[in-house]
Amino acid sequence: MKNCLIAQSGGPTSVINSSCIGVFEKNLELNIFDNVYAGLNGIEGILNENLSNLSKMDPKIVSKLKYTPASGLGSCRYKLKDIDICRDEYLKLFEVFKKYDIDTFFYIGGNDSMDTVKKLSKVGVELNSPIKFIGIPKTIDNDLAIMDHTPGYGSAAKFIATTALENSLDANVYDTKNVFIIESMGRDTGWLAASAVVARIDNKPVVDLIYLPEVPFDKVRFLENVKNKLEQKNTVVIVVSEGLRDKDGNFVSEMNSFGSDKFGHAQLGGVASYLKNLLKHSGVKKVRAVELSTLQRCSMHYASQTDIDEAYNLGAYALENSKSIESGHMVAVKRTSTTPYKSEIFTLHTELVANKVKYFPKEWINEEGNNVTEDAYNYVLPLILGQPKIQYENGLPSYVSIR
Amino acid sequence: MKNCLIAQSGGPTSVINSSCIGVFEKNLELNIFDNVYAGLNGIEGILNENLSNLSKMDPKIVSKLKYTPASGLGSCRYKLKDIDICRDEYLKLFEVFKKYDIDTFFYIGGNDSMDTVKKLSKVGVELNSPIKFIGIPKTIDNDLAIMDHTPGYGSAAKFIATTALENSLDANVYDTKNVFIIESMGRDTGWLAASAVVARIDNKPVVDLIYLPEVPFDKVRFLENVKNKLEQKNTVVIVVSEGLRDKDGNFVSEMNSFGSDKFGHAQLGGVASYLKNLLKHSGVKKVRAVELSTLQRCSMHYASQTDIDEAYNLGAYALENSKSIESGHMVAVKRTSTTPYKSEIFTLHTELVANKVKYFPKEWINEEGNNVTEDAYNYVLPLILGQPKIQYENGLPSYVSIR
Repeated sequence: MKNCLIAQSGGPTSVINSSCIGVFEKNLELNIFDNVYAGLNGIEGILNENLSNLSKMDPKIVSKLKYTPASGLGSCRYKLKDIDICRDEYLKLFEVFKKYDIDTFFYIGGNDSMDTVKKLSKVGVELNSPIKFIGIPKTIDNDLAIMDHTPGYGSAAKFIATTALENSLDANVYDTKNVFIIESMGRDTGWLAASAVVARIDNKPVVDLIYLPEVPFDKVRFLENVKNKLEQKNTVVIVVSEGLRDKDGNFVSEMNSFGSDKFGHAQLGGVASYLKNLLKHSGVKKVRAVELSTLQRCSMHYASQTDIDEAYNLGAYALENSKSIESGHMVAVKRTSTTPYKSEIFTLHTELVANKVKYFPKEWINEEGNNVTEDAYNYVLPLILGQPKIQYENGLPSYVSIR
Repeated sequence: MKNCLIAQSGGPTSVINSSCIGVFEKNLELNIFDNVYAGLNGIEGILNENLSNLSKMDPKIVSKLKYTPASGLGSCRYKLKDIDICRDEYLKLFEVFKKYDIDTFFYIGGNDSMDTVKKLSKVGVELNSPIKFIGIPKTIDNDLAIMDHTPGYGSAAKFIATTALENSLDANVYDTKNVFIIESMGRDTGWLAASAVVARIDNKPVVDLIYLPEVPFDKVRFLENVKNKLEQKNTVVIVVSEGLRDKDGNFVSEMNSFGSDKFGHAQLGGVASYLKNLLKHSGVKKVRAVELSTLQRCSMHYASQTDIDEAYNLGAYALENSKSIESGHMVAVKRTSTTPYKSEIFTLHTELVANKVKYFPKEWINEEGNNVTEDAYNYVLPLILGQPKIQYENGLPSYVSIR
């Protein structure tokens, strides 16, 4: 009897479960493993022997996870240290693997999780273990090296762009000059904020200014940018990345606040809130700031079907090719054509991805450093295509919880 | 030659344009009026003779407004005073009506706008004007008297409930006790916050606590409620209305803040942000607060088709019956059956609605005052049904701007 184990790690996405169901359903089809175990709450749960046998559950229920957002198997932010520092943890993990007769471990995650895959495969060799460790990528941040993009990004991009599109219309209803600021996630990279470039009406971009962490933030230039735009039009729509920093590397979200509001409260919040106050204190009367928070990473009701399919196919491919994929490697997406969009799956060693960050390309940022180019538009567009094939029940998406 | 005039007022909704297109398309069919004029930016725009002839535009373009969120004709927050105070304004308006040969004026709005319809019809009688003034309701707040519900509410309710549903899954991925707070709009009423009751997985509500302005907010009881829930489960999901007040009538959003965060900033924001800080200062470590802001009123990509259809039908009915509807009256929706859901349109005098507020029923609030009953569930459910028949272009909804 040979089993496989699958677990999820890091921040959730709308489609992280699709990869999991790709593994699960491909195994139903090919019967490569006798049982597909889920490690609940990632590597941390496995350390606590918190496992669940998906093969013993009703496959119809499990498969509903394909269209359920967030990490259905639970997640963790646990990073394994080097074996010299925590040998016991590794030994405990391999003990659990052995107890459940695990042949292959699929770990779905970002660059931290790929570091875990890398470390486990290395320790496996040292321990003479036959267990194979395979990584499956996910992150809305789209910051994994080498691959074209990551599952989760397309759906978040679609949500951000649509929010910009719809709110640009909403912000423009009154005959008053105003500024609308949307804050996206993305950590140190601007991929998510840049995705707003696809928001268009009559083929004209609705977002006027996009600020990315790849360009040092300059307060004076920002105020100039906005005031210039406000002279040309009624409503100025801005998308900013949470990870914005000034030239000295200080996070804008941590900058000092500006006086107090009408109730005597100091003004504060994230980047969008900071910029709102900056504009208000420089005389712009009407400013609204919205932080998209976790909505951008779990809005499965509006995910990109392209994203769902790619996430699923990566899982299915990893399962189907688990015998030939080398331990410590991961699956990833390569774009082979943009128009029409075509992609294929390839494998690479996790050490090329672990702990590395892929920044938004400088050449796709405009000269003023306050927007992105048509190249960015062409890059993002195919990734957001397709309405998700959600099942509805009593008016809302029919999601499942299996934990 | 006889023309009609249509205008929009107050805060936008996802479906306010659907009512407008109901008027427009029904007139294309029945040819009751030679021209359908749009008053841009509501009554304020009409005062400035800011009119646009929809009948001279490409009807295919105009009709795209049916599935475009926000007030496509622009909006205003302008409230007409009594005629004794601003006779000149009324005379100017009637002058514009006469110049454009307006026979009937349709005004789409909430209780303030219905006050405008009431006043105009009264002045019309005094001036011996034959012009007819007809109101068409809209507001996501659902706070208009007498009618079962208002167009715009169902779509906002669907967005709020789905956001609660998806984010409850997202919040629950880590093995850590945490609280997720969503702040809805709704002014002085709890209709929007209460709509989260329809968010369910396996027929179990995912929202643990719902706080409405109809129940005076009590800090101590709130902390008790949350701590009790946190003992039972990992993630506690809370939906709060922006209009929450304490027993003395003070807005919670205006209450004093709690100390400062790690950067030395005082903590502040709306209600959700206040409650977040309250919980953090009482020892709850992980709390996330999200203000849905304008997203809840313009997310046409996920509107309720039931809501779109009702908004459209109200406009079409008003046009078709404009000869028999009395001036100063409005159209509205009556529910004739909940299972299966059936509704019909009726008319009533705007004076029954103008400046009045319909509160969330006390009998639909649970004993503890921190959630709503199955009656509320049954009330909301039919209003959110149906996926919107949106056209997509380059991956995103194809919206139109006609101003």
